[in-house]
Amino acid sequence: MQVDHLGIAVRSLAATVPKWEQLLGGRASPPEEVASQRVRVSFLDAEGTHVELLEPTDADSSVGRFLDARGEGMHHVAFAVANVTATLTGLSAKGERVIDRESRPGARGRRVGFAHPAAFDGVLVEFVEWP
Amino acid sequence: MQVDHLGIAVRSLAATVPKWEQLLGGRASPPEEVASQRVRVSFLDAEGTHVELLEPTDADSSVGRFLDARGEGMHHVAFAVANVTATLTGLSAKGERVIDRESRPGARGRRVGFAHPAAFDGVLVEFVEWP
Repeated sequence: MQVDHLGIAVRSLAATVPKWEQLLGGRASPPEEVASQRVRVSFLDAEGTHVELLEPTDADSSVGRFLDARGEGMHHVAFAVANVTATLTGLSAKGERVIDRESRPGARGRRVGFAHPAAFDGVLVEFVEWP
Repeated sequence: MQVDHLGIAVRSLAATVPKWEQLLGGRASPPEEVASQRVRVSFLDAEGTHVELLEPTDADSSVGRFLDARGEGMHHVAFAVANVTATLTGLSAKGERVIDRESRPGARGRRVGFAHPAAFDGVLVEFVEWP
């Protein structure tokens, strides 16, 4: 299973993108608003996977509350799967907690869905559908 | 720059390895003790990168204190570089905080070194040397 991206919560894309561009040696994608998650995101290429920087557009969003509770830092890891809804259904069937029961629109025009952190030892796991 | 691995802090390798093996569809490496970090670790392959599960061998280690403060979850991200000491020196020269000034022995017989989370927006970044 491939790591599609590592999601990092930040207070400001403008303030943080340049350092990650310097570390990873490339340009970040133009900020994209993901309405369903109330974030603006930019992706950076990391040779076979990506780093996603997430800035909340609403302090009361999931990422906004994460920043209040923990500060900036790693927020989630996303794995590429062929069918997000089937993956979430399979986890549920094993008794694992999920945040989403079916896929929903995510960044880059892809469908995504989240397991609950309790399902993976405190790690918020996202699944991203690659058609 | 390639993501060598994503490090996840857990209380028990024995209790958590099976679920990650099931998610990623492979077997974890046999637990290895990393004396310099007071952890036992297992690696799982994730198509071009890896997931590292870390169990502290000492409650007062860095990972042990992380678990007390935050519970299980994502602990660090590691990037593969040709020369860890040179990478750390370069960061320091730019005024960034580092935990290690030079590389030290890490898991899998590789030399490693850590930047300070303050250098990368709250993300603990490790560098791993691939000869």
